[in-house]
Amino acid sequence: MRTYLVISADGHAGPPPAVYREYLDPEFREAFDSHQAELEAGRMVNTEFVDEWDEETGDHEMRAGYDPTVRDAILDQEGVAAEVLFPDADVLGTGRLASSPFGSGLGSGVGVDPSAVKAGARAHNRWLADFCATNPDRRIGVAVVPITAGVEDAVTEIRAAAERGLRGVMIPTRWFDAVAYNDPCYEPVWSTCADAGMVVHTHSGAGPADYPLGPGFLSIYAAEAWWWAARPFWVLVLAGVFDRHPALRYSIAENGAWWVPDIVQRMDEKWDGAHNTRKFGDAFKLDLSRRPSEYVDANCFFAASTPGADEIARRHQIGVGNLMWGNDLPHPEGTYPHTRTWIAERFRDVPEDETARILGATAAEVYGVDVDALRAVADRIGPTPADVHQS
Amino acid sequence: MRTYLVISADGHAGPPPAVYREYLDPEFREAFDSHQAELEAGRMVNTEFVDEWDEETGDHEMRAGYDPTVRDAILDQEGVAAEVLFPDADVLGTGRLASSPFGSGLGSGVGVDPSAVKAGARAHNRWLADFCATNPDRRIGVAVVPITAGVEDAVTEIRAAAERGLRGVMIPTRWFDAVAYNDPCYEPVWSTCADAGMVVHTHSGAGPADYPLGPGFLSIYAAEAWWWAARPFWVLVLAGVFDRHPALRYSIAENGAWWVPDIVQRMDEKWDGAHNTRKFGDAFKLDLSRRPSEYVDANCFFAASTPGADEIARRHQIGVGNLMWGNDLPHPEGTYPHTRTWIAERFRDVPEDETARILGATAAEVYGVDVDALRAVADRIGPTPADVHQS
Repeated sequence: MRTYLVISADGHAGPPPAVYREYLDPEFREAFDSHQAELEAGRMVNTEFVDEWDEETGDHEMRAGYDPTVRDAILDQEGVAAEVLFPDADVLGTGRLASSPFGSGLGSGVGVDPSAVKAGARAHNRWLADFCATNPDRRIGVAVVPITAGVEDAVTEIRAAAERGLRGVMIPTRWFDAVAYNDPCYEPVWSTCADAGMVVHTHSGAGPADYPLGPGFLSIYAAEAWWWAARPFWVLVLAGVFDRHPALRYSIAENGAWWVPDIVQRMDEKWDGAHNTRKFGDAFKLDLSRRPSEYVDANCFFAASTPGADEIARRHQIGVGNLMWGNDLPHPEGTYPHTRTWIAERFRDVPEDETARILGATAAEVYGVDVDALRAVADRIGPTPADVHQS
Repeated sequence: MRTYLVISADGHAGPPPAVYREYLDPEFREAFDSHQAELEAGRMVNTEFVDEWDEETGDHEMRAGYDPTVRDAILDQEGVAAEVLFPDADVLGTGRLASSPFGSGLGSGVGVDPSAVKAGARAHNRWLADFCATNPDRRIGVAVVPITAGVEDAVTEIRAAAERGLRGVMIPTRWFDAVAYNDPCYEPVWSTCADAGMVVHTHSGAGPADYPLGPGFLSIYAAEAWWWAARPFWVLVLAGVFDRHPALRYSIAENGAWWVPDIVQRMDEKWDGAHNTRKFGDAFKLDLSRRPSEYVDANCFFAASTPGADEIARRHQIGVGNLMWGNDLPHPEGTYPHTRTWIAERFRDVPEDETARILGATAAEVYGVDVDALRAVADRIGPTPADVHQS
């Protein structure tokens, strides 16, 4: 192996508000201005950190989020051949506002007029398709599709996104007051995605909404965020979505994977008929024709972003072929601008074949990447096995 | 060591509805009849399992739940010297209705008039005090206190329960539409419990309430139940409740403990300032003056009921001094009528001192048990270390 073909399964892109405005249907532009003003008024910025971050990256205008030339230079510098692109290049990162319009991005589902959310999603998806077209081999675009705001419109948007070359859809992390994802009303979403080869995604986003501001609020929110973002995972598995749509692939982005083995083990135990399920008879088997872990293995992927020590240690329980690396570019909680160092640190003792799989081979398969086209890029930018395992 | 002093940190007791009726304030008896009729109309029974269970236990009238003589005989048979008593001896077990009135038991908080819930709790607590008085050394009663239905009344009930000899309070697992437990409005509850030496409990109970009946409902509910029951744990820790009330002890009953190390590690990581918390500055440290795990070690206990293989394997990470055994008597998901066998199976390879601690020594300390009084009982009924480790 000359170099690892590295694909980040978790990146973020989005332009400044003025650009989004141009991509919006004209009738929503006035409402957009008002909504942006509200966001601006309500935002909280840790200015000390923003200064430090801008200094570290040298990117004071956050061009990494939307400028193709800047982005490609960063990809080269970081050793990343291609990347999967979610919305919201900043928003929570440094307090700037490069977020998918009308809250249609990572926090989708929170109290905005459904028509506006859908318009915001359309605008982002159009912009994203144009952005991906600037370097189609290296950019894998994920459309934002607010399925909780209407299934029929969602299906239309998924088809439009697929036609524009986007390769996946991100559904809202939380359904909030809409019906949960086990409901059959969402079947057209799953079948459309399966037919179009669009990978379904949830990305860590909206967390708990029932805590009063006050003692421990931020710590509690942070302690729960993973679970709210993981929730659609077992809902799709246990509601039999992958039973009915075996071609459907689902990726959970930026939500770790340390929790996967324990959760899946318990799902299996109930299906198998553990002691504490006696009183339920065969109810768990009636829900699902195969063991939950079989669907997980076949259909589910964990774009854990930069894996922690726990994800690496548990990679065989998670599934070496189900764990996908990412660097969360350009968010400061990711590894930019030190991705090469982080990769070496995490994968130093991982065998080469497993490293290759987690760093990119699985993502290449999941997203139907043109590996031959990317091979030249990878050969140019590295990293080599020696960089990773002997550094 | 002659025998292990075994204390079940998770048992259930409650009389038939006709008995509860007598313990209710008279003005609630008519409403009680209506509510019981509703429950009766809505209950689903797996009759095949109930027949099998009644055959196995020989207890067709479920006297184990409320008859002191029957209960003591079972404790002796199972090798249990004393036990902590929660409500709802049956309700979900075999479909019968020995549940704390007006849903004030394990599922507390679900859509019942708050006055009725409080009346139901008072009735259960009076009955429980009488039941515990039939053998005070062996019965540790936990009052049900619906704190989400009013803090002032809750404080009154906690004091009354303490005066009647009960040694803990169970608060609702979920706050539903009430304010979450990080809110300062609950301070009088925590301080009253700390002052009175009443151990605060949550017990696995109400789970998710936002799934439509339909595909996967039961499997999804079962997959999430642990998390909803664990939720108050990090809320109390991260809201600083144990910082302000260092004498307060908290036990999470029948909710496993396999999840504890991962959750606590992540709470600590944020407090320590992990890479992904950079943008938050020292916000996590502002929430809490000490590392979360310090409060967990000092104030929190996991009455995991009969531990699974994972709890035993992770006991040092959970805290050998924080894990408490239980048998969930008389629920069929517990180990009755085969508790001795289960203890031997789980603890065979656990050192004697750790076995003694998990099986009873910690519970004895947490609940202020008169160990000298119980020693004679334990010597009579066993189990011996040879029974456990050489069987």
